[in-house]
Amino acid sequence: MADLRSTFLKVYSVLKEELLNDPAFEFTDASRQWIERMLDYNVPGGKLNRGLSVIDSYKLLKEGKELTEDEIFLASALGWCIEWLQAYFLVLDDIMDNSVTRRGQPCWFRVPKVGMIAVNDGVLLRNHIPRILKNHFKGKPYYVDLLDLFNEVEFQTASGQMIDLITTIEGEKDLSKYALSLHRRIVQYKTAYYSFYLPVACALVMSGEDLEKHTVVKDVLVQMGVYFQVQDDYLDCFGDPETIGKVGTDIEDFKCSWLVVKALELCNEKQKKLLHEAYGKPDPENVAKVKAIYKELDLQGVFEEYERQSYAKLNASIEAHPSKAIQAVLKSFLGKIYKRQK
Amino acid sequence: MADLRSTFLKVYSVLKEELLNDPAFEFTDASRQWIERMLDYNVPGGKLNRGLSVIDSYKLLKEGKELTEDEIFLASALGWCIEWLQAYFLVLDDIMDNSVTRRGQPCWFRVPKVGMIAVNDGVLLRNHIPRILKNHFKGKPYYVDLLDLFNEVEFQTASGQMIDLITTIEGEKDLSKYALSLHRRIVQYKTAYYSFYLPVACALVMSGEDLEKHTVVKDVLVQMGVYFQVQDDYLDCFGDPETIGKVGTDIEDFKCSWLVVKALELCNEKQKKLLHEAYGKPDPENVAKVKAIYKELDLQGVFEEYERQSYAKLNASIEAHPSKAIQAVLKSFLGKIYKRQK
Repeated sequence: MADLRSTFLKVYSVLKEELLNDPAFEFTDASRQWIERMLDYNVPGGKLNRGLSVIDSYKLLKEGKELTEDEIFLASALGWCIEWLQAYFLVLDDIMDNSVTRRGQPCWFRVPKVGMIAVNDGVLLRNHIPRILKNHFKGKPYYVDLLDLFNEVEFQTASGQMIDLITTIEGEKDLSKYALSLHRRIVQYKTAYYSFYLPVACALVMSGEDLEKHTVVKDVLVQMGVYFQVQDDYLDCFGDPETIGKVGTDIEDFKCSWLVVKALELCNEKQKKLLHEAYGKPDPENVAKVKAIYKELDLQGVFEEYERQSYAKLNASIEAHPSKAIQAVLKSFLGKIYKRQK
Repeated sequence: MADLRSTFLKVYSVLKEELLNDPAFEFTDASRQWIERMLDYNVPGGKLNRGLSVIDSYKLLKEGKELTEDEIFLASALGWCIEWLQAYFLVLDDIMDNSVTRRGQPCWFRVPKVGMIAVNDGVLLRNHIPRILKNHFKGKPYYVDLLDLFNEVEFQTASGQMIDLITTIEGEKDLSKYALSLHRRIVQYKTAYYSFYLPVACALVMSGEDLEKHTVVKDVLVQMGVYFQVQDDYLDCFGDPETIGKVGTDIEDFKCSWLVVKALELCNEKQKKLLHEAYGKPDPENVAKVKAIYKELDLQGVFEEYERQSYAKLNASIEAHPSKAIQAVLKSFLGKIYKRQK
């Protein structure tokens, strides 16, 4: 595993060098240095789960056959395209949310002399994806499928981000808009497509598969992505801050969390009134009131039941899939997230 | 002409309706309304020169043969893709430059309740381009060429924007960096590719041409784009504000303008010292000092000579092209900009 990670990181260095010497642009020394620093700051510093899972999935699709060096490189390059996509979203999201830190360091736009240049850096990160694809996949029969795939998933992610942003416009905070259907939509589009579907879709395309024939795989992975985000919402309130590495603030931030949506669904009129008054307020008293209602409604029990049912349903869908190799890919994803504590 | 414009605007309505009903995303009513308002505010309000020139160029390439309705629609759709690209750049540029107005109305991010959501709106505008291409060109033999073309030109534009941004970082204003080579690089990448090359490239691709075989056309159009921007820099200082529709502020804004670059090239030591002191200062006295030096150096005469030589060179390159149809396309562009006053 440590080995795979170091191979993966070596591919990052290769891709970066290519981008810094892209013949489509005449770099100045200053601009080449800017890009290198921007990439090193924003691209490789995460957990790399999404990127690494392209290689894992591709291996499972090859059913134990040893991968060639070329295959490892190409699967890694696609994995890095997802990491580049993630970096692009995070750089821009942090500007929109006016965030302070990301991955334990100041957000890129807060670095001295960067500021709003970060908007264009985000755009450049996004533009690096088709450069990487062109450098390594142009000429492959599935080149156009990769372009379409990344375009569609980016569109879905930005669209999910849009409904998230417009439901939380300052001055229009309205809890009555929050319902399970809105929550599912935000989560499915903003997170599930690029985090769960995209890595497997990349591996399938590289294996010569036609994605149009894999709508079941897509549905299962999108469901898994929704389940993953529900866990995230749950852990934000009920997880151990030591274990998850941060103190949750969804209640203070008026987030359309699965917990508040469930609470609104299950509460009586008195509790609803209290939720409307207390949700989205920054002070600890109001946060405590919301948490008290979550406990009264036994949201921990409701979540455990949701987790049990989600797992059973996903498992059944996976077992019903005709391909053992694809079953293995999906089970690997499900195994990594079931009952996770962080 | 008025006819072409109204046909073109009808195509906008068709494309917009398709985007508002894109099956790749489940719109809420609020998000559909948001997108419609955002598109109407940012996409069709410009001069539409870039978009319309795709249709004009395609017609000239067809050498007088009447276009079918389908051809007009497709050329218009490509024209709109360029207008969408332009809207995406402008929405994000206005945020980065903290601008106030654009096309006679407040910049989109200054509209109440929009704010930083405009960053994601920019991303969505960009994402609409591959959606439009997929809706109307998927299956055409040149589909992948269109994707590659838009990707490459966007990359070049964002790269040009980067060198412009990093050379004007607040607190590092340094006139000694300004030289003709830097000016040419910024202008060529930030403006010329998408404004001059892209419309003709779209028309060529739609005509079944292989862009790899048209490097001469690319070079001529890029040179024309540079010449266009030099005119822009000249008119910013010496043009009639009534005619160009704005009062130029390149001197106050410390812009890497062709005028200051030429001035630095031609000035003596005393003038250079004065330029270094006065350039980029907001008060009218300093602006007047810079303009006085421009007059001492006869930059108006220098510009006229530049214009004469550029025209002669471009014209000679065009005349040397083996295709009369392509000559007509390039001459049409050159005719529109030669000795323009606005």
